[in-house]
Amino acid sequence: MQVCEIINVGTELLLGEILNSNAQFLCRELAAMGISVQRVNTVGDNPQRLREDFTLALSRSDIVILTGGLGPTQDDLTKEVVAEALGLPLEEDAKQMQCIEEFFRVRCQPCVQSNRKQAMVPKGCTVLYNENGTAPGIYIAMDRKIVVLLPGPPRELKHMFNHALAPLLQQCGDGVIVSHHLRTMGIGEGRMAELCGDFLDSTNPTVAPYAKDGEAYLRISAAAACKTQAEDMCACTIKKLQNVLGNYAYSVDKPLEQVVLELLHAQDKTLAIAESCTGGSICKRLTDLPSASRVFGWGFVTYANEAKQNLLNVSRETISRFGAVSAECAQEMAQGALARSGASLALAVTGMASPADDTNKPAGLIFLHATDGTRHKSLKLETGRSDRAYNRNVAAKQALDLVRQLLI
Amino acid sequence: MQVCEIINVGTELLLGEILNSNAQFLCRELAAMGISVQRVNTVGDNPQRLREDFTLALSRSDIVILTGGLGPTQDDLTKEVVAEALGLPLEEDAKQMQCIEEFFRVRCQPCVQSNRKQAMVPKGCTVLYNENGTAPGIYIAMDRKIVVLLPGPPRELKHMFNHALAPLLQQCGDGVIVSHHLRTMGIGEGRMAELCGDFLDSTNPTVAPYAKDGEAYLRISAAAACKTQAEDMCACTIKKLQNVLGNYAYSVDKPLEQVVLELLHAQDKTLAIAESCTGGSICKRLTDLPSASRVFGWGFVTYANEAKQNLLNVSRETISRFGAVSAECAQEMAQGALARSGASLALAVTGMASPADDTNKPAGLIFLHATDGTRHKSLKLETGRSDRAYNRNVAAKQALDLVRQLLI
Repeated sequence: MQVCEIINVGTELLLGEILNSNAQFLCRELAAMGISVQRVNTVGDNPQRLREDFTLALSRSDIVILTGGLGPTQDDLTKEVVAEALGLPLEEDAKQMQCIEEFFRVRCQPCVQSNRKQAMVPKGCTVLYNENGTAPGIYIAMDRKIVVLLPGPPRELKHMFNHALAPLLQQCGDGVIVSHHLRTMGIGEGRMAELCGDFLDSTNPTVAPYAKDGEAYLRISAAAACKTQAEDMCACTIKKLQNVLGNYAYSVDKPLEQVVLELLHAQDKTLAIAESCTGGSICKRLTDLPSASRVFGWGFVTYANEAKQNLLNVSRETISRFGAVSAECAQEMAQGALARSGASLALAVTGMASPADDTNKPAGLIFLHATDGTRHKSLKLETGRSDRAYNRNVAAKQALDLVRQLLI
Repeated sequence: MQVCEIINVGTELLLGEILNSNAQFLCRELAAMGISVQRVNTVGDNPQRLREDFTLALSRSDIVILTGGLGPTQDDLTKEVVAEALGLPLEEDAKQMQCIEEFFRVRCQPCVQSNRKQAMVPKGCTVLYNENGTAPGIYIAMDRKIVVLLPGPPRELKHMFNHALAPLLQQCGDGVIVSHHLRTMGIGEGRMAELCGDFLDSTNPTVAPYAKDGEAYLRISAAAACKTQAEDMCACTIKKLQNVLGNYAYSVDKPLEQVVLELLHAQDKTLAIAESCTGGSICKRLTDLPSASRVFGWGFVTYANEAKQNLLNVSRETISRFGAVSAECAQEMAQGALARSGASLALAVTGMASPADDTNKPAGLIFLHATDGTRHKSLKLETGRSDRAYNRNVAAKQALDLVRQLLI
């Protein structure tokens, strides 16, 4: 098995300013490719220490992956240090220079000298072109070792890893590990684990329970000689687990909003959304997906009571009698959104995301309502928490699950 | 300044199963105490590699902090490896043994032999008793070096750091480091760095440029004997940088939505938001903040053309003549949102977040418009990218910046 070492370069990491999510991403992806990561090192923007660490890593590993320090400024030194340690001169890559000039041209910003430095690459390397930024990645194969440089911003790194580096590294691993997530809603981690019983003791595939913000899921991982075989092993176990979990299991890998969008599309239905405490976050989740416009056309972020009345026809009496945070208000919001938009279904959320002084309703009390005009699904959440982000996230997920329940 | 190195022990980290939040926590806390973390290393549950890394770290640092590998199972070896490397025998700590027995007694669980192993500590060390688990922390001061072992679970580690370790380390640090971010909009990292010129060479405070998804910022860090002095040094440099950067610099540390919200509140104004391609994400950003309801009441997610016409009074002619993705449509959306809501200002966004088949408009072409009814600010973005998340993120930031520009 090939041995790999990762070096994350950046003083901001050592100051604790950012969380090192790149390390986790790379470790997970490399493990899945059958490449053994034995060490992850973080070092600051200091050329001497970086040189020491790189030289040591190269002496004991087959693959060394460095991240960060590829920017245009003078403290970005990863490329220079690595090229020098390997005895490779830097030369301008014409295609990369074009990419950089184009990058600034479309943004109507000047391309300054420091940006031109980013087109310099070690002689003989394979350039991993960056579709999301101006720093190219670098892949160097020499003396039976592989050295890779990736940009630090996670979005750039992930895209480059998946599209440019993974195909090159695939040849290095022996055997593959395939993992999938069976996602559930409406059931806690404990109950989910109970239902799965003996599956949690199996060794290949392994089945492990996880919980995250109101959602519980199982990770199924199979190791095999080839991808097809590992996929088949996963599929077989997932099928058995789906039988056990029934409608709680809403997807394999796919996020809930994708499942809802596909159900709507398959049934040729549209959805209107009325949000108060979630403040647009359900609309945002659905429109994160490129095909949202097929099924979603109208969203109402009615944060103010006047907006609820004016746009959604919620009655003044309902608000004064039950309050804006009430099952009655949620239902009228959904009915108003349905009537106003002409959609086939409407979803409404109103509640307390944070504690507030001007009401006796507790933070985490949230009312959800979904309807197609005939059938209704409603839910009252009481999270008992003051954490605004948590409450909004859980409410958005539960709201989308209400729509899923109306559709299945 | 004391030099520190952190070693995180755990195969689960190298498999990417968990995010290394302990490293970020420790780095941030140690920096604030004036202790310079120069390296963070992650190594698996492998005694040989752990011994190598520990010996190397101890040779070049004043303080070595190890986390994880203190559990009851046989792959938990940190304590054993460190004690052996330092030539210290392990002996049972009577108080820790009592704690462990008590821990299991109150839980009505049996205390097995493997748990008793957790009461063994290196001779002469200071035991950091664990109020949240059975693994004690260890503090060893010898040969002018300090070695610390902390448990891996973040809740146990943080509590032990704050309550037991920080008071011991406080004596080691000399002075404190304070960092702030000067955030800018409308200027690239390269151009920002050029304007800052010599500031980037200064050593205390240091000034370092960063870029993130359409936003560029400077990190200013000062080291001093006390917090007040370090804050004063930062403030002085920040003031000079603000003079250089003018209105491009929109805040120190605060996110853009917070700045906009505070400007609106200070001027007693309200904002209505009409979103097409950003699909609710601007409303979401603003309502992520608990005080959003003071200044925001109405949001329109008009994804469909009929919604633009019906809710915002965009004329059919504008859409058929210029298209929904046009400066004209953005302006009518903003004017419609202003009229409909009665807010003091309105903001509108319409554009292409992804490539689409049914139009000849390119992905990344986005029109923004902000108005108070009299004055107008508009912007045409051409990101040149197909990345939906990037386009929506940049559009949301630029849109909020248009409102900021109307307000300053």
